[in-house]
Amino acid sequence: MRIVIAPDSFKESVTAERAAAAIAHGVRTVVPGADCREVPMSDGGEGFTDAIAAGLGADLIDVPTTDPLGRPVTARIAVAPARPSVGGTSADGTSATAVLDIASAAGLDLLTAGERNPRRATTRGLGALLREAARRVQPGGRIIIGLGGSATNDAGMGMLVDLGLRLLDDSGTDVDPVPEDLGRVARVDATGLDPVLRRVSIHAACDVANPLLGANGASAIFGPQKGADDQAVRELDAALAAVVRAAAGVELPGSEGRTIDPASANEPGAGAAGGLGWALRAVLGAEMTPGIELVADTVGLDEQVAGADLVITGEGSVDAQTLEGKTPAGVAAAAQRHGVPCVVLAGRVHADADVLHDHGVTALVPIVQGVTDLEAALADGEANLERAAAMVMRLVTAR
Amino acid sequence: MRIVIAPDSFKESVTAERAAAAIAHGVRTVVPGADCREVPMSDGGEGFTDAIAAGLGADLIDVPTTDPLGRPVTARIAVAPARPSVGGTSADGTSATAVLDIASAAGLDLLTAGERNPRRATTRGLGALLREAARRVQPGGRIIIGLGGSATNDAGMGMLVDLGLRLLDDSGTDVDPVPEDLGRVARVDATGLDPVLRRVSIHAACDVANPLLGANGASAIFGPQKGADDQAVRELDAALAAVVRAAAGVELPGSEGRTIDPASANEPGAGAAGGLGWALRAVLGAEMTPGIELVADTVGLDEQVAGADLVITGEGSVDAQTLEGKTPAGVAAAAQRHGVPCVVLAGRVHADADVLHDHGVTALVPIVQGVTDLEAALADGEANLERAAAMVMRLVTAR
Repeated sequence: MRIVIAPDSFKESVTAERAAAAIAHGVRTVVPGADCREVPMSDGGEGFTDAIAAGLGADLIDVPTTDPLGRPVTARIAVAPARPSVGGTSADGTSATAVLDIASAAGLDLLTAGERNPRRATTRGLGALLREAARRVQPGGRIIIGLGGSATNDAGMGMLVDLGLRLLDDSGTDVDPVPEDLGRVARVDATGLDPVLRRVSIHAACDVANPLLGANGASAIFGPQKGADDQAVRELDAALAAVVRAAAGVELPGSEGRTIDPASANEPGAGAAGGLGWALRAVLGAEMTPGIELVADTVGLDEQVAGADLVITGEGSVDAQTLEGKTPAGVAAAAQRHGVPCVVLAGRVHADADVLHDHGVTALVPIVQGVTDLEAALADGEANLERAAAMVMRLVTAR
Repeated sequence: MRIVIAPDSFKESVTAERAAAAIAHGVRTVVPGADCREVPMSDGGEGFTDAIAAGLGADLIDVPTTDPLGRPVTARIAVAPARPSVGGTSADGTSATAVLDIASAAGLDLLTAGERNPRRATTRGLGALLREAARRVQPGGRIIIGLGGSATNDAGMGMLVDLGLRLLDDSGTDVDPVPEDLGRVARVDATGLDPVLRRVSIHAACDVANPLLGANGASAIFGPQKGADDQAVRELDAALAAVVRAAAGVELPGSEGRTIDPASANEPGAGAAGGLGWALRAVLGAEMTPGIELVADTVGLDEQVAGADLVITGEGSVDAQTLEGKTPAGVAAAAQRHGVPCVVLAGRVHADADVLHDHGVTALVPIVQGVTDLEAALADGEANLERAAAMVMRLVTAR
């Protein structure tokens, strides 16, 4: 009996990798000979790098860099050897896939509540991560980037300046790439951009469709949760608009004459991660893909699911919104494509989650064993997953 | 697909009857054509009369009587017409089965905490219930009695005096049948016992094996929870011993010379319900049966389970102790006898409940849908049962 076990992390309780192991353990208590394929998942949020790293058997590498306020921080990237089924190959076999979370150097979790300040927070620390990732994967390799959880609203200018881009004011002086200064940018010079990034393909996990500017843009929609008040939102939006104007038509080196198209600011996802989405796409040529699809593709989920007898996925909480690109929905879609039953384990099953039954989910299974408080439920995560998985196996093999 | 739905009540949340209906509803959301047989159960505790009444399609009859402190109270007995498969028949077809809970006239729940007083609490109010039950079922009928939840420790003397027994002191004066006076009983006269009770068989649902007297007896073991301190326990035990001595060898009218055997005080279950077990058995000739077996027999559980595709039972909480005569264990045993899978739904599944998997339980299914407090869990009982039952059906029909 082949069972694909592809959970997301259970937030604040169990990582995706440990969740998969606990579920596999529970399955084997009932079906000792089960062929359990553990495929930890992520939809781009918390645990993105770790989940893919576990699925690919990647090495985790510490990279010294800086946080959104410029303080030293150690971020972690994952580098997996090339695998033919997954991509990232090259003729000489040295290329590979690297994975990183922008939150590890530009994340809100790196700041205290009082430190949140989108006028100052910078993506500069991401430059070192991208360089290290590009250097590791070699020509033809892929860099996979999780965009969730940023503290920044700098349209990725900190990162790009760190990678060699220049922002100049109307007197030709370099402008510091912090949002409060970006309004002064009059000219952009891309000639110094680090050529290492041209040799790899960049894929960003992006689940939002917001443009860079305006009422539906990065500053207006995501600024407030990063600490921006109404006045700051207006200033930030104006600053990013100045950058786009200054960048319009700038030629990108080594790209056969490709220039920065100002219309790119309107594309879906340009507003992701405080405009970092725009920088990655318009300047670095990244491809934007929904997180769950990118992860599923990277870890080879479909190949695993094909021919399985059962798929088990899960997440801390499931509701109707789970359909909007969350891991259980993505895994269920893969199961449905291959005609395999799919069970979703969850710490909380909201009543409106029933809609998932129309999208490839066979059953929604709450894992708590009775009345409990949140603290205990989080502490008991692995034990509850194991028990719930065993229960599922008892029921699916009952008749 | 035939599914037997035989839950107990979910204490303080859902009656057995409503639980069965909620489960059936959940089953039908997934398998619309399912043949659901709702068989509400009880193991002798809370909801005993109601559960059997629902299973038998019985009439519920209000009987005015008195509570443990002699105050008026309306108790309820259930009377079902005779059914050949179940017993309680007679040649003229007029006999039947009556069911009553002693808690309805002698129960701890009828008193405030401050009113608990086992020196005064009496089973007197049960006399009226027994007379009414015996009158309703006619000759050859059966009276089924649930023994749980008593506030009394009077060895059933209140009930027996109400039914015509006399307790006399050494001057031949009647002794009031309250425990604090029972130490003065020197002689028992059974000649006036109401003959109506001789025409029926009495079956008591009893799950304890305690004798009437001594360190393991009614007063020592169950007295404290009814409000007895150490001194009261000693006095109560001595008082019941006096009654047994006085009753020894007393001839029972209309019983072909049968007398009260003082050794009967040592029999298992004599100490049940403050010694009411002894009175029912030694004086009224009742048969003592574990509650779940008595209920299963009365409602014809085995006949329902035979040939079913699935059995679903449940209770508020399941643990290793569930094996000791609780409803889920009894229903699982019936399912096992007939080779039918049995699923247990529960508000709380304790880790040590896994032992039930070795006793006919296919799977233990917690019904809560996530972190919740007790109040909400109790309020959501029916909705959670419905969802859990639907989930079970999705899983057992998954492959």
